[in-house]
Amino acid sequence: MPKNSMKEFMDTNFLLSNETAKVLFYDYAAKVPIIDYHCHINPEDIEEDRKFDNITQLWLSGDHYKWRFMRSCGVSERLITGDASDHDKFVAWATVLGCAIGNPLYHWSHLELKRYFNFNKPLSEETAEEAWEHCNRMLQDPSMSVRNIIKKSHVEVICTTDDPADDLKHHAKIAMDPSFDVTVLPAWRPDRAVDLEKPDYLEYLDQLSRASGVHIKSYSSLISALKIRMEFFARRGCKICDHGMSYVPYEPASSSVVEGIFVKRSRMVPLTKLEEAQFKTALLLELARNYHRLGWVMQLHFGVKRDNNTRMFNAIGANTGFDCADNCTNAAQLADFLNALDETNELPKTILYSLNPADNLIIGSIIGCFQEGPTFGKIQQGSAWWFNDHKNGMREQMLSLASQGNLAGFLGMLTDSRSFLSYTRHEYFRRVLCDVIGTIVENGEFPADMELLGGIVEDISYYNAKEYFGF
Amino acid sequence: MPKNSMKEFMDTNFLLSNETAKVLFYDYAAKVPIIDYHCHINPEDIEEDRKFDNITQLWLSGDHYKWRFMRSCGVSERLITGDASDHDKFVAWATVLGCAIGNPLYHWSHLELKRYFNFNKPLSEETAEEAWEHCNRMLQDPSMSVRNIIKKSHVEVICTTDDPADDLKHHAKIAMDPSFDVTVLPAWRPDRAVDLEKPDYLEYLDQLSRASGVHIKSYSSLISALKIRMEFFARRGCKICDHGMSYVPYEPASSSVVEGIFVKRSRMVPLTKLEEAQFKTALLLELARNYHRLGWVMQLHFGVKRDNNTRMFNAIGANTGFDCADNCTNAAQLADFLNALDETNELPKTILYSLNPADNLIIGSIIGCFQEGPTFGKIQQGSAWWFNDHKNGMREQMLSLASQGNLAGFLGMLTDSRSFLSYTRHEYFRRVLCDVIGTIVENGEFPADMELLGGIVEDISYYNAKEYFGF
Amino acid sequence: MPKNSMKEFMDTNFLLSNETAKVLFYDYAAKVPIIDYHCHINPEDIEEDRKFDNITQLWLSGDHYKWRFMRSCGVSERLITGDASDHDKFVAWATVLGCAIGNPLYHWSHLELKRYFNFNKPLSEETAEEAWEHCNRMLQDPSMSVRNIIKKSHVEVICTTDDPADDLKHHAKIAMDPSFDVTVLPAWRPDRAVDLEKPDYLEYLDQLSRASGVHIKSYSSLISALKIRMEFFARRGCKICDHGMSYVPYEPASSSVVEGIFVKRSRMVPLTKLEEAQFKTALLLELARNYHRLGWVMQLHFGVKRDNNTRMFNAIGANTGFDCADNCTNAAQLADFLNALDETNELPKTILYSLNPADNLIIGSIIGCFQEGPTFGKIQQGSAWWFNDHKNGMREQMLSLASQGNLAGFLGMLTDSRSFLSYTRHEYFRRVLCDVIGTIVENGEFPADMELLGGIVEDISYYNAKEYFGF
Repeated sequence: MPKNSMKEFMDTNFLLSNETAKVLFYDYAAKVPIIDYHCHINPEDIEEDRKFDNITQLWLSGDHYKWRFMRSCGVSERLITGDASDHDKFVAWATVLGCAIGNPLYHWSHLELKRYFNFNKPLSEETAEEAWEHCNRMLQDPSMSVRNIIKKSHVEVICTTDDPADDLKHHAKIAMDPSFDVTVLPAWRPDRAVDLEKPDYLEYLDQLSRASGVHIKSYSSLISALKIRMEFFARRGCKICDHGMSYVPYEPASSSVVEGIFVKRSRMVPLTKLEEAQFKTALLLELARNYHRLGWVMQLHFGVKRDNNTRMFNAIGANTGFDCADNCTNAAQLADFLNALDETNELPKTILYSLNPADNLIIGSIIGCFQEGPTFGKIQQGSAWWFNDHKNGMREQMLSLASQGNLAGFLGMLTDSRSFLSYTRHEYFRRVLCDVIGTIVENGEFPADMELLGGIVEDISYYNAKEYFGF
Repeated sequence: MPKNSMKEFMDTNFLLSNETAKVLFYDYAAKVPIIDYHCHINPEDIEEDRKFDNITQLWLSGDHYKWRFMRSCGVSERLITGDASDHDKFVAWATVLGCAIGNPLYHWSHLELKRYFNFNKPLSEETAEEAWEHCNRMLQDPSMSVRNIIKKSHVEVICTTDDPADDLKHHAKIAMDPSFDVTVLPAWRPDRAVDLEKPDYLEYLDQLSRASGVHIKSYSSLISALKIRMEFFARRGCKICDHGMSYVPYEPASSSVVEGIFVKRSRMVPLTKLEEAQFKTALLLELARNYHRLGWVMQLHFGVKRDNNTRMFNAIGANTGFDCADNCTNAAQLADFLNALDETNELPKTILYSLNPADNLIIGSIIGCFQEGPTFGKIQQGSAWWFNDHKNGMREQMLSLASQGNLAGFLGMLTDSRSFLSYTRHEYFRRVLCDVIGTIVENGEFPADMELLGGIVEDISYYNAKEYFGF
Repeated sequence: MPKNSMKEFMDTNFLLSNETAKVLFYDYAAKVPIIDYHCHINPEDIEEDRKFDNITQLWLSGDHYKWRFMRSCGVSERLITGDASDHDKFVAWATVLGCAIGNPLYHWSHLELKRYFNFNKPLSEETAEEAWEHCNRMLQDPSMSVRNIIKKSHVEVICTTDDPADDLKHHAKIAMDPSFDVTVLPAWRPDRAVDLEKPDYLEYLDQLSRASGVHIKSYSSLISALKIRMEFFARRGCKICDHGMSYVPYEPASSSVVEGIFVKRSRMVPLTKLEEAQFKTALLLELARNYHRLGWVMQLHFGVKRDNNTRMFNAIGANTGFDCADNCTNAAQLADFLNALDETNELPKTILYSLNPADNLIIGSIIGCFQEGPTFGKIQQGSAWWFNDHKNGMREQMLSLASQGNLAGFLGMLTDSRSFLSYTRHEYFRRVLCDVIGTIVENGEFPADMELLGGIVEDISYYNAKEYFGF
């Protein structure tokens, strides 16, 4: 390849390696709005239309992806989550980012600098001070409030992630505020009600008892409480739920066995791994049947092992950058779990995400066993998740999904983010998508019917999610 | 890449991305015949020289790959396996195929339309009626009978897949018919004799008792019956056997333990997972020793979980598109299983296929432990199977095999198909093969010795199988 | 791609597909010395400055990679490890190598022929005699002694692999020899002290008792003996240790339980799998704490199952080409093992290697949980190992590492070899590295700052290891 074929760093054709890809991106993908159907942003920030003092507050105060990278570069914890100044934390981050070749943080960060701050230099130790000044100056502008960032990002719908005991008061206020027309919906995430192995499980049940008005003293009363909360979430517009787990279990047991496990747990008698799996199987199936009844979409996120560094967990808590991929996905149990729901016609629309890309074919082949008209793509493989949320991971997910099933029916991107600048990830995803499709076409492996292809790209970027979730 | 470098959709150089690949394909790969050493076609269709009323009968009446894809696009089951007309089923298929970007069905289908029907337009909702008329008209021609399709496909040998209790009468008649000179051989697939966990196992043993003339009332009499049937298959020209399983077990047990398990199964006493594995280990080892004695090649297909959708299984039975990849391959047991046979010099030639591409290196490194002269490539990794039977899956299998062992000794492609149009998959495979090899050469990673390379390509396409199986 | 774009076979730009890659390789990577921090060469050969009678002695007398390939091509064992003449063995090897397209042995062998023998033809049956004469003639020259090969390879440090009972006398002599200024250090590999399931474990303990002067009659005395030997290794300059295992276990047990397991083993009472794992967990943790205390780097090599062919093991022993990848990595136990050390601030610098590339993301995400300043890249993913030690395997490891963490902090290549010609693998690695980085840059995914990039390439090739190990 002659030198003059080198592309400029993150130019307008970033990630677009051929003409078809460019047309698909500019004429189709870039034009449709964003539905961010799964994220972890704080609805309070939207309600209050939060503004940020400086770029560290916005970028580094909660982003454990960045923290992990800094630790792997030997940065002292004081400059990451400690008591160093915001300025010094930013400089420490800029310094290590400057060498982060091949890491998706490099692209995420520079896309955000370009799109939201019009800062176009590579961030590094050399440019750190200039970027610090520049971004902080821009953050003073009202256009950089949370609501204005969302609006300028062309976002139509945001689904947050919420505990069953949450009162959803911020969602209610946002919904009633006529000055903000982006739909912000809660999503049901009952992990704390499922994970009976956690030390604070019984305290959580107390919390859930208070929120539901049901005194939870048995498995069946737990179900009752959760049902009440599901109705409440539904009234607040919830259409999606989500579960996080190491693997999807399928260990069926009678209700008396499950009630017995609940009693043991209540009395703090240690449970076996089998008992834990039996309890979770029963509860997950019962919840899923309710999702089906309510017309909710069920998301299952598995293949993750959290909080692996006890020392740091004790020091700074959860979601601080100490999680890893697990490899305990049980394909047979996953298939049997879905089958148990399907057998009684109670399988809800479902999206499967594994943190382990070795599961791509497992998922692609399992979802193919439970598809059913008239829904277009009833069971879905979710977009490349977390540690796979980068060009290569996305490409692998898309090619695997395409090989096994119906790429054109794919629900596409979500940010899964805690940050209000992450909407550029939709741009990143769409560029990768257009490049994957464009490359297939340029290779002569699909007809160059731009209208058809443009429609597919728009569907994956926007319309499929709108239709599937019913927004 | 400038736009004028785009390849036309499926033109003559489909899948061939460089000049070396083109020379290898046209001058070598395309010229040698086909040995289809593993498929699922019905020998009765060959014996009767079946003709097809319409393209739906030929294409959609038994192809569960297509059914799965239709379901994932939300097509109603009535239009897939139900009572809709053949015409309407074809239109439903054409409609969803039109958007199947990245799915291998797109290429399989269009190659078949091009090569057998000279229909060169993309199939879609728009062209469905035209294709329906065109193909059905051509199917009236005698040249489109089963035997004529086989002959025009340049097929020399076909190995079907047959149950030990089968009388092989169609094979006998085909062999005696001087008007058809393609070799059609049975292949031994004793899954029903191995899978003692299946509800109909005892009924099957009755069937096998009748076929063999041995009253099967113990494990040892089961072996006797199977030996008698193996001799029968051998007399009918069988040279290959095949096993399907979730994983290759190795749980050795004494013969008295195994006889005890047989007794329990006969009396319908529930068995443990360990007992099932012990029984299967013993039976598989015993069968394998016989394969070695008879000079048969043993195929092991693993990594699959079948019939995952109980509701649909009850409605329309097995092999209807509800199978998935499993992830329970036990590398240690697989290696120990082969070792147990090797220790007594009774390891037959063996081909390993896993449905899970995460097993590629496992297989590549295990086969390397049991290679032994004078056979060239005694233990083989089979071609990319089922869910991996596409460009990316084939490429990964070839590159993994090449990295770990002897690509030049690879046995190459088989259709694994239930359809008489699937011989184009050999063309597809050979194009991918030539492109993989051509790319290595064009990258300067192997000398451009076209005679040597052409010979390797011919060997993988044809001669290796001819030599290995002894056809 | 027009034909005239084909690269010549292994020309100067071998593996370098773009201009940035070429600049990075020639101006940076090629210029820095080699630190070979993990290999299996025999220090006695260095001490004696061994010369080789012929190319078979040098190339084929111990290289089980080559033996495996020959077996997979049907070569008789007589021509591999048997009593055939060195000449005939070489011709047999040359003959099969000639067809080894896609196998890394093709590149390893030709790089060695080019760099050490200036033999530039493809090796094959046709050129075998010429190569035999040519190489053997050159081997008579004093410049082809072991020490001279090492010196001309630009090697600064070599770390061998040594048993705790070894007297390290060759290391001592080399260190005292002023005529040879390459640093040759021992590395601690206590597998025989850990693998209590091996039949010769008790004999080994006798050996270790003699070497340490501690009568090993309990678990605690085993620890005492090992500590004495660690001190001895440290005095000989050891800075690295290494463990080989099927998986990293984490089954904590009290010291009385572990002592009980030792007693059972001493009395040859069979142990359960759990007991084996408990013993190994305790011993590995205890060793790791000592590594931390001594400032040693801990290498963990897992995902391998050795000596799978009993017949050949009985005939020709271990390390003869009958090993395979395993798939029993337990991500949860691996993370918990590291955490147990981290909790007490006793986690040493650690390098994780799995033979199974399906573990790449597991490793990448686990190391991210235990990084800690001020060390730059305290926990590392090791370079693509053994069956993955080729272009595609290296590329996958680099891209995975880059996606998950800090590529710029990567320790880079080691030969892991038994041969004195393997230093060309560093060249091979550096070419792949420069191509990976160059491609990212040419794609516009990182700024073309050649000084920065050149520094990163030099660091990965040399400086990171120098700093990390403290050479």
